[in-house]
Amino acid sequence: LETYDRLQKLTVSSAVLGRALAITDAQVRKDLAYFGQFGYPGVGYRVSELIVAIKRILGTDKTWSAALVGVGNMGRALIQYRGFARRGFRVAAAFDSDDAKIGEVVGHRKIQPLKELESTVRRRKIQLGIITVPAEAAQEIADKLVAAGVRGLLNFAPVQIDVRAGVSVVAVDLAIQLEQLCFQVG
Amino acid sequence: LETYDRLQKLTVSSAVLGRALAITDAQVRKDLAYFGQFGYPGVGYRVSELIVAIKRILGTDKTWSAALVGVGNMGRALIQYRGFARRGFRVAAAFDSDDAKIGEVVGHRKIQPLKELESTVRRRKIQLGIITVPAEAAQEIADKLVAAGVRGLLNFAPVQIDVRAGVSVVAVDLAIQLEQLCFQVG
Repeated sequence: LETYDRLQKLTVSSAVLGRALAITDAQVRKDLAYFGQFGYPGVGYRVSELIVAIKRILGTDKTWSAALVGVGNMGRALIQYRGFARRGFRVAAAFDSDDAKIGEVVGHRKIQPLKELESTVRRRKIQLGIITVPAEAAQEIADKLVAAGVRGLLNFAPVQIDVRAGVSVVAVDLAIQLEQLCFQVG
Repeated sequence: LETYDRLQKLTVSSAVLGRALAITDAQVRKDLAYFGQFGYPGVGYRVSELIVAIKRILGTDKTWSAALVGVGNMGRALIQYRGFARRGFRVAAAFDSDDAKIGEVVGHRKIQPLKELESTVRRRKIQLGIITVPAEAAQEIADKLVAAGVRGLLNFAPVQIDVRAGVSVVAVDLAIQLEQLCFQVG
């Protein structure tokens, strides 16, 4: 939708959205209707209205702040990832266990030692954690983040993380996207 | 499935797979049946058999090699991402336009200048391209990779890439995973 908006298209049909999403137009209408009445008969959806509505549905109409733990290559890439800010995410604090990195500035954020994680997350009311540590450290870091009060974890470590009920985990597996590509290439 | 395999489970039911994938067991059976006859009545699926079958379906039973262009933080993270090798992907060559990086070794690969992209991709029969350059350079790099003969592109640049028919593009948008997390956290 943001692409259509940038192209200054005012409206979009369920057929066009369906093609872009590789689902049927009927499914687009059904999925959106689940959340409310957004379409106009004979017109389709107004792009700007639908963006606002979907942001509200996703909860991304507000700004979310995240604490990132593990400032290796992936961590550095994410701290500086421009796609986050544009969508309302802010890496508010970054932590690492390596003394040599403490105090270094990455993307305007000073890397903090792990021992400051809990107090910083609490004080700044950080809601999300991004885990970019090696697999063997991931569960321990997840536990620390949850104890400090975060309610959701984005896990880049290639290992499953267990958390108590009420905390959400989304695992990012970059190989899945490559597998999807291979399937398409055939 | 690989998690179940590591846990030494020999079989898995469509209900268990469905729960893990957040779809119904009927959908699991229907989707797999599309590709062949994999299940055993009263038993479910044999984990090791299903892994082999799905790798064949996805085309990941062979090793794929990729050329990565743009050795910034994201590029470095991907070159060294252990999840790729485990799933049959190899970043066979890495390129950058920055003279200061040429010759540097990242994860056992020597960074090559862009002018060697075409000859290297051709000579080593590299099938995939991974684009980790800034948005403004992404289309040009995509064109170079396609001209050199790659058949699929994994695009990390936050911009849409156009390619000729017969070439596949999968766009990776890391903010989508954060949005999914926010939706779950509510």
